[in-house]
Amino acid sequence: MSDFFLLNTDSQSQGRAGLLKTGHGEIETPTFMPVGTGGAVKGITPAQLKETGANVVLANTYHLMLRPGVEVVEALGGLHGLMSWDGPILTDSGGYQIFSLSRLAKIDDGGVEFASHIDGARIVLDAEKATRIQNRLGADIIMCLDQCTSFPVEAGELKTAVDRTIAWAKRCKTAHANGNQHLFAIVQGAIDLEMRTYCARELVKLDFDGYALGGLGLGEGHENMIRTVGHTTALLPQDKPRYLMGAGTPTDIIAAVRAGIDMFDCVLPTRNGRNAFAFTRTGPVRLRNNAHISSTEPIEAGCDCYCCRNFCRGSLRHFFNTSEMLGPILVSIHNLRFYQRLMTRIREKLKAGEFSAWADKIQHITP
Amino acid sequence: MSDFFLLNTDSQSQGRAGLLKTGHGEIETPTFMPVGTGGAVKGITPAQLKETGANVVLANTYHLMLRPGVEVVEALGGLHGLMSWDGPILTDSGGYQIFSLSRLAKIDDGGVEFASHIDGARIVLDAEKATRIQNRLGADIIMCLDQCTSFPVEAGELKTAVDRTIAWAKRCKTAHANGNQHLFAIVQGAIDLEMRTYCARELVKLDFDGYALGGLGLGEGHENMIRTVGHTTALLPQDKPRYLMGAGTPTDIIAAVRAGIDMFDCVLPTRNGRNAFAFTRTGPVRLRNNAHISSTEPIEAGCDCYCCRNFCRGSLRHFFNTSEMLGPILVSIHNLRFYQRLMTRIREKLKAGEFSAWADKIQHITP
Repeated sequence: MSDFFLLNTDSQSQGRAGLLKTGHGEIETPTFMPVGTGGAVKGITPAQLKETGANVVLANTYHLMLRPGVEVVEALGGLHGLMSWDGPILTDSGGYQIFSLSRLAKIDDGGVEFASHIDGARIVLDAEKATRIQNRLGADIIMCLDQCTSFPVEAGELKTAVDRTIAWAKRCKTAHANGNQHLFAIVQGAIDLEMRTYCARELVKLDFDGYALGGLGLGEGHENMIRTVGHTTALLPQDKPRYLMGAGTPTDIIAAVRAGIDMFDCVLPTRNGRNAFAFTRTGPVRLRNNAHISSTEPIEAGCDCYCCRNFCRGSLRHFFNTSEMLGPILVSIHNLRFYQRLMTRIREKLKAGEFSAWADKIQHITP
Repeated sequence: MSDFFLLNTDSQSQGRAGLLKTGHGEIETPTFMPVGTGGAVKGITPAQLKETGANVVLANTYHLMLRPGVEVVEALGGLHGLMSWDGPILTDSGGYQIFSLSRLAKIDDGGVEFASHIDGARIVLDAEKATRIQNRLGADIIMCLDQCTSFPVEAGELKTAVDRTIAWAKRCKTAHANGNQHLFAIVQGAIDLEMRTYCARELVKLDFDGYALGGLGLGEGHENMIRTVGHTTALLPQDKPRYLMGAGTPTDIIAAVRAGIDMFDCVLPTRNGRNAFAFTRTGPVRLRNNAHISSTEPIEAGCDCYCCRNFCRGSLRHFFNTSEMLGPILVSIHNLRFYQRLMTRIREKLKAGEFSAWADKIQHITP
């Protein structure tokens, strides 16, 4: 499949602007995918989400396979039907959630057995099943099952996880049976550059539609993450999209674009939004702060989001102070729009050949 | 002030279609006012609220005087600024909330002293203060401070409360100092028709911009409520709007319109919506029910609300089952739209002279 097109590459970094075609529309890259874990971006309707500029959304296979289950999602018209989202969707494989949320019972080369974080039910997942489930959920981009390691990780354990990630990716590719979906492999290897090299090379031999970087943002720190990203993207084919899973802050995103990443997802805009933390060009605004009690200023002057066009900081502070749902909703909308404005600016700068100079400047003032 | 105009009166009942002009736009009556207690209709943005067809919203003086306080509301541009709502707003006087929410410390002819339900702080409120606060909050319609009685109530206690309600209404009228606001008096008297007659006649002598019926919907039952309403509206001037506070179910509303009511407010659409209870023409739909697990039907076929146009029952059930905020938000939107569709239909039928026949038919199938 050749559905990814590079529009421009940055002469002074690994940054690139591109276009990824999917069955539900085109994605301009670099792109940021809001997280709709169980089929909904928390508190945000699809209409509001579209208004923030999002054009691709992430959902979690792990959550969806537990509730409502793949049969129900299919009955409701697939993930697009469940979510009422007609744009592109990406599902992760469940690998990360199994390691972070469930009680892991058993893992071997065959697959994983784990206890659901909801009711403790025993569930078995392997490469074939993870792929079939995603085939049936019907996202436009799906991920291979991988084994994520925690940070730090012992060398032997890391090697085993990387070998398994490679072997499972091969099995996922064989099992993949939905031609409307792009299948991405996940490069693991923690911050061990030799392991990243090994994993990337083996996966590239298998020829996937795109490549993700997993196992980062787990406590290794910004510098380690970006060094690992830059090392790894250099080993990946230019003509395939690269996706840094779970990242990140605006600073992380700018640095990772510079290091050659095309796609991002992160819960920060919505999770922080629910906690009264707003992103702005000049740094975070914490809306519970008493300083905002009588403020008629919007969260961010000049922001074109629904929240900033209609609500002042004083109102938002009041909504958080009185536990009104509208506080979390409005600040999530602002933060999602902030991220999309950032991505639009990044794409513009990449296309205009001005990215590196801009990134040098912006990184000192971006939260 | 003569800002209320009757468009048509029903020949077979006390029902009427009218138009109430306010500083923030006209209100077609009969109208239903969604409840935005602390300055927000729970989970609903003003844009979504407008899309449901609401054109006037209620907010609670009691809640707003406690948090964020009248000074802060003023600083934020008044209630319209706080809420980002540019249409008409009505504030109640706080009378009902003081009796239902706070620990009442003392009540006499002078006023009330109560303990805030939030932090127990001692607060004194009287007719003048309740009026001044509402003058400053800046709603388009404000209410006199009244003394609400519980149901059932002993005759002596009722008489004292009615006398106080009349005396306070007079003081509120004298204190009222914002010519942009309509001031409504509240008729009390429980289901004692003599007391209602007495209270209504005394208040009418004082000549208010409108008259509300308080102290109903407190356990007296539908028949008692409607009998009391019909008895009372007959004593009120034809050329002033009448508002039944806190009502009600769709059945209550249709019967109360028939009995001469022009304005309603109720938490049912949003409170029930948050609890997965949807109103439909054919009765309630409880969206947590397993029967909806794979249903691709909307809540109500033919409904033009955002929820019904975009989401099926199966998705909504999943959102409630997984505690996604989107479930409460979407069903609140549907219920608010259901109520507005009902009011539109009522107004159409009144204007066409077909209201009574329609009401006879509809009351058997309406929840």
